[in-house]
Amino acid sequence: MRRTMALKVLPVVGAGLLIVLAVPGLASADTLDAYSNSNGGVKDTVGLNSVGINSMWVIVAGMVVMFMQAGFMFLEIGFSRQKNAGTIVAKVLTNFSIAAVMWYLIGFALAFGKEPGGLTGLVGGTGFLLKGFGDPLEGFPVMSVSNATVEAKFFFQFVFCAVSLAIVWGSTLERIKFGVYAIYAVVFSAIIYPIGAHWVFGGGFLQAGDWLGTGLVGMQDFAGSTAVHLIGATGALAVLLLLGPRKGKYGADGKPRAIPGHNMPLFGLAVMVLWLGWFGFNPGSTLNVQDGRFTEIVLVTNLAAACGVLGALLMSRVMQKTLDIGMAGNGAIGALVAITAPSGYVELWAAIPIGLIAGLIIPPSVLWIDKKLDDPVGVLTAHGICGIWGTLSCGLFTSPRFAQYNAFGDPNGGLLYSGSPAQLVAQAIGLMVAFSFVFAMSYTTFFLIKKTYGLRVTEEEEDAGLDISEHGMYGYPEQFIPPAELIGYGGGPSSTVPPAPIPALATKESTA
Amino acid sequence: MRRTMALKVLPVVGAGLLIVLAVPGLASADTLDAYSNSNGGVKDTVGLNSVGINSMWVIVAGMVVMFMQAGFMFLEIGFSRQKNAGTIVAKVLTNFSIAAVMWYLIGFALAFGKEPGGLTGLVGGTGFLLKGFGDPLEGFPVMSVSNATVEAKFFFQFVFCAVSLAIVWGSTLERIKFGVYAIYAVVFSAIIYPIGAHWVFGGGFLQAGDWLGTGLVGMQDFAGSTAVHLIGATGALAVLLLLGPRKGKYGADGKPRAIPGHNMPLFGLAVMVLWLGWFGFNPGSTLNVQDGRFTEIVLVTNLAAACGVLGALLMSRVMQKTLDIGMAGNGAIGALVAITAPSGYVELWAAIPIGLIAGLIIPPSVLWIDKKLDDPVGVLTAHGICGIWGTLSCGLFTSPRFAQYNAFGDPNGGLLYSGSPAQLVAQAIGLMVAFSFVFAMSYTTFFLIKKTYGLRVTEEEEDAGLDISEHGMYGYPEQFIPPAELIGYGGGPSSTVPPAPIPALATKESTA
Amino acid sequence: MRRTMALKVLPVVGAGLLIVLAVPGLASADTLDAYSNSNGGVKDTVGLNSVGINSMWVIVAGMVVMFMQAGFMFLEIGFSRQKNAGTIVAKVLTNFSIAAVMWYLIGFALAFGKEPGGLTGLVGGTGFLLKGFGDPLEGFPVMSVSNATVEAKFFFQFVFCAVSLAIVWGSTLERIKFGVYAIYAVVFSAIIYPIGAHWVFGGGFLQAGDWLGTGLVGMQDFAGSTAVHLIGATGALAVLLLLGPRKGKYGADGKPRAIPGHNMPLFGLAVMVLWLGWFGFNPGSTLNVQDGRFTEIVLVTNLAAACGVLGALLMSRVMQKTLDIGMAGNGAIGALVAITAPSGYVELWAAIPIGLIAGLIIPPSVLWIDKKLDDPVGVLTAHGICGIWGTLSCGLFTSPRFAQYNAFGDPNGGLLYSGSPAQLVAQAIGLMVAFSFVFAMSYTTFFLIKKTYGLRVTEEEEDAGLDISEHGMYGYPEQFIPPAELIGYGGGPSSTVPPAPIPALATKESTA
Repeated sequence: MRRTMALKVLPVVGAGLLIVLAVPGLASADTLDAYSNSNGGVKDTVGLNSVGINSMWVIVAGMVVMFMQAGFMFLEIGFSRQKNAGTIVAKVLTNFSIAAVMWYLIGFALAFGKEPGGLTGLVGGTGFLLKGFGDPLEGFPVMSVSNATVEAKFFFQFVFCAVSLAIVWGSTLERIKFGVYAIYAVVFSAIIYPIGAHWVFGGGFLQAGDWLGTGLVGMQDFAGSTAVHLIGATGALAVLLLLGPRKGKYGADGKPRAIPGHNMPLFGLAVMVLWLGWFGFNPGSTLNVQDGRFTEIVLVTNLAAACGVLGALLMSRVMQKTLDIGMAGNGAIGALVAITAPSGYVELWAAIPIGLIAGLIIPPSVLWIDKKLDDPVGVLTAHGICGIWGTLSCGLFTSPRFAQYNAFGDPNGGLLYSGSPAQLVAQAIGLMVAFSFVFAMSYTTFFLIKKTYGLRVTEEEEDAGLDISEHGMYGYPEQFIPPAELIGYGGGPSSTVPPAPIPALATKESTA
Repeated sequence: MRRTMALKVLPVVGAGLLIVLAVPGLASADTLDAYSNSNGGVKDTVGLNSVGINSMWVIVAGMVVMFMQAGFMFLEIGFSRQKNAGTIVAKVLTNFSIAAVMWYLIGFALAFGKEPGGLTGLVGGTGFLLKGFGDPLEGFPVMSVSNATVEAKFFFQFVFCAVSLAIVWGSTLERIKFGVYAIYAVVFSAIIYPIGAHWVFGGGFLQAGDWLGTGLVGMQDFAGSTAVHLIGATGALAVLLLLGPRKGKYGADGKPRAIPGHNMPLFGLAVMVLWLGWFGFNPGSTLNVQDGRFTEIVLVTNLAAACGVLGALLMSRVMQKTLDIGMAGNGAIGALVAITAPSGYVELWAAIPIGLIAGLIIPPSVLWIDKKLDDPVGVLTAHGICGIWGTLSCGLFTSPRFAQYNAFGDPNGGLLYSGSPAQLVAQAIGLMVAFSFVFAMSYTTFFLIKKTYGLRVTEEEEDAGLDISEHGMYGYPEQFIPPAELIGYGGGPSSTVPPAPIPALATKESTA
Repeated sequence: MRRTMALKVLPVVGAGLLIVLAVPGLASADTLDAYSNSNGGVKDTVGLNSVGINSMWVIVAGMVVMFMQAGFMFLEIGFSRQKNAGTIVAKVLTNFSIAAVMWYLIGFALAFGKEPGGLTGLVGGTGFLLKGFGDPLEGFPVMSVSNATVEAKFFFQFVFCAVSLAIVWGSTLERIKFGVYAIYAVVFSAIIYPIGAHWVFGGGFLQAGDWLGTGLVGMQDFAGSTAVHLIGATGALAVLLLLGPRKGKYGADGKPRAIPGHNMPLFGLAVMVLWLGWFGFNPGSTLNVQDGRFTEIVLVTNLAAACGVLGALLMSRVMQKTLDIGMAGNGAIGALVAITAPSGYVELWAAIPIGLIAGLIIPPSVLWIDKKLDDPVGVLTAHGICGIWGTLSCGLFTSPRFAQYNAFGDPNGGLLYSGSPAQLVAQAIGLMVAFSFVFAMSYTTFFLIKKTYGLRVTEEEEDAGLDISEHGMYGYPEQFIPPAELIGYGGGPSSTVPPAPIPALATKESTA
């Protein structure tokens, strides 16, 4: 009985089963017995199947969300100049790693742990080091909607935190000191994000509604237009205000000058990776697959992104008289950010206005912000403005069939269905609270860094590029190092010479 | 009862269970009760598990197929010159987005909806805007083989449509007007592809067989060698005939000249992404996982691709006296295209001849077509010729155990098993019908575009490159913009200068 | 009865179900009946669900492990010079393809087949061509822990073999003859890897313990720190000793000179792809999802990798006075290699010391090895030294709750728990046996190749680069081909000129 039984061919019959007959290697249902310990064995296996399925979905979704780090990496690389491309690799690895450790030590507990007495609605307090959370399904109340394992949920929520942190840095390219990443990453992933996320979608007061007896309905943010994207963009705004623009960005007349990134193909890779990741981001936030809801969310997500691309291209044509590649890509990203909050609450058709409007917003917002703030990848627009739009859109489009999710009250859905602004008000207040908290915390943190460690590299280092100044190497050495110093080029009569015979190269190193 | 019960450790026993004892975070089967509403609860959960599993597989498979867009993006980028690399990013985003909208509005209903009376075998007619399809399992008869949700199937079929559309443009690189993409994308994803796909694998007359009382067996095309790849390649042929070759491709003597793409590493990325995507493409077409068939199809797919690489390299060695990198990659792609139709019908061993022959075909076909038609990425070979080979191969290799899939008649498998050419004839007729329809529709569409909007950029724009002429920017600005105009280079004594100090650069912009 | 029944809305109730009410497209549990053939139907479906879930997880995990080929591709591309970048694409495709065929013909059977009489502990002997393995669950005893299909397991184990093979070549960049790849790939994937893997984690004598009556406990290597990574690195050492360093690597004084790779962004892509792949590599090695263990392993894997990055950066700061980008990435890789063996046996906290130590080892080991051996990507450190560390770490950190996995004896876990060095000794002996076998086999193979076909290209070819010398083309043509020879540049007054007007370019081709 400790051996599985021999297999036999299963005469599976059924309406339209594609393949009817025996398949070599197909395990029989009899193997089920091997997993059963009693008469209740079938039931146990059913339960294990259920846990297994849901955990698998959460992990797979988490994997593509984790891979969004590559998306942010290439978004920033694409929009940087060659001399600042390599540092981004080190930056993403460092940030993600610090966040992983802090999330394990502190972040997860604050964001999703059980609230201690006296801190109701404010912060979680169990599950530090993923220990002591008690009953897995009760320890993290807001995630008890799914029977996926705690570890699966931990992973999924960690990669959300890491996305939010990655968003912060889009406004800081090409002039920030590397150490700033590390310091802020600790504070952000241990404190700022966990508390903000707890309030918005970790069971905190914004999600619960009726806070301070106001009778407000709870905020709706299914996968984090506010909790992940706006929080990240708020950090990006805080650091940008203290950091200032890149050298040369604004002319003597105060007008912005274009500093094109060096590699649109890698930007294209970024957009594809992020789009893919969003199929984990939104549908994965169901934390289960059994009710099939996640497949609806896949469609909502994809349709919104598509409309975002089309909206951004349309507006680029109108405003810029061309079809800007960066706008097209940011149209997708902005629409994906916008649909993140409502994806769990709206009908499929609503993805069209939500995504389209996000796309239409992109070009004017990017161009307008560029006049005053040097935000190289457009994070303030794509994650900030579109995050706000997406969060508010719940107040308009939430379908009655999902309105009961609100813990308190029943607005019967968004304004378009219910005629009531109740949800919209809750969204607006939630936005303001989350923004204010994160901005205050982040500005303070960056201010302290500025006064002590410093935020910005020297002008000389900025000229030389962060790759050589912060890492002692180039991201693309053959574009910068003179042939005479490169090994393997120009050696003998039959050899090639390198591609970049730069006459007057004067790097920090060669002048030293 | 609205709370899940406390967990207890499950004393799971069984033959070889790797981990026997309690695992923190492991939900007990008791949580199952939370999902049960009656004595039939276990059964309900089993059903939900079943729907959840199959939907998850379809979505995960769809995700990697969606990511094949990145594969096509980098296939085309790699084979383009630097001045035409950025436009491809915008093109892929635009195409995919238009297709997403059209598929939602029209395409899915035509391809997979229930056929209206009088149009039996020709076109579906329910499910526009994913509404009104009635019973989910009956509304789309051909997909009722799986209990995955309609939304999951919609997504999976949409990404197929998007792949087919992406294939079209491989023959048009470096000289087509951007607007052509948009116009044709609408027609293709709303009309051409849905009708063609319906005929071949959406339940239409080619699949059903016995059309017009001919007694023919149904065509076999498991995942779309014809329905996706040949249809795409047919569009590529139609546009190419009207578009003509790139400037300089053919010398005064009429002989082709090599125009090497600019980036083989990114071509390598493309091949890996496409190969990965095919594990969704073919095995995902089972639409379910319960019978384990999908795992057999994974192996068939992988083995064919491997043999395709080896076949192409062998033939490259013979014909070109070298090991052409592009041929190796196209060997994989061509073999994957070829195995797409038979993957659901053949035994594992048959992957070897199917893939190997596809690979062997690649070099002679690419070199032969290149003499007359300027097809930069080799789409006519990889998706056209290999699509034909793959479709025909069912007629040779279909195993008796899968032969009953034919809706009509029973040829007992391919020629090698049955001695009957019945399946082969059905395949050949199907190919001709699909090709004729798509070619006629596409040629007409492109002809009308040519006569009105125009297909091709001006010679001056072609010289300058599509990035600057269609998008007002470069894909790799630092390779094209003179140092004096680049911000952040050459500024002060300690700064670097950019990598490409091109002496006589005269772009469209700087001359304007 | 051959039609599925009409659906009805399921009134699913339960504790915290996010979405309670009817969802269009949600298949009812009644559809379950369609799959049932008897009163035992529910049970059969449960069994099919179980097989389906586990097979899906193994396939999905296998897919991301397969995609690690792209990771190794870009790891090597990033660390190569531009003139040697394209060949790596062809190399990866060729290796993976040869391995796929050999694994099908021979490898899988030797590694995981049932041992023939007289060869107990040494080598498998059933399952050639995936045939004749008898009972799927008994035919491959070591994998009978899971009811996933044999095909799923075959695929998963194949991609492991392919990873091991890919690792071999990291030490050979920029000077090896292309044919060497092909010859060794045959031997490695048919003989060397299968036998080594069989011993370590295929049920062979190292895994079983008590060999030759020694009473030793079995070696622990959950996912292959030794079986995959050290075996690959051992091959890399063998070929490197026979191949020698790149031209110019060591100066007249014998001191190493830095030959920087050409593209750190693509190296960054590699690290992200590999990190993603490891979520398949380690957690997928459970071969099932039902017990939730795989989610714990996800966390262990991620935390170790994060600590590896931080450890490597810390040590880079100390030793190199900078934050080396390559060290940061190799810190992740080295830690992932290290956690591969213990990931299935240790508690979450242990990921921190295991990963951190791996990261700390990276810089000194890379710098030390570089003094004598020219290992461009650092494979000897990341996969060799860290593979050894990871394998040994089981002897320290294995948790008592997983100690019973040992087939023989019961050391009650690693030294830190049990005070017993039993497991540590088993690990050390296993390492030595595996290393010795693979080194002897590989050195012999490469020695024979050197004496016949030759290992190394000529000096002239090395100067020109492997792209042009082995493949007759450039990976980045516009960086090497003079403008006058490039089509489409410099044609008319309005045209652009290419980015790299190299004055004295003398390629093999243009001088010929």
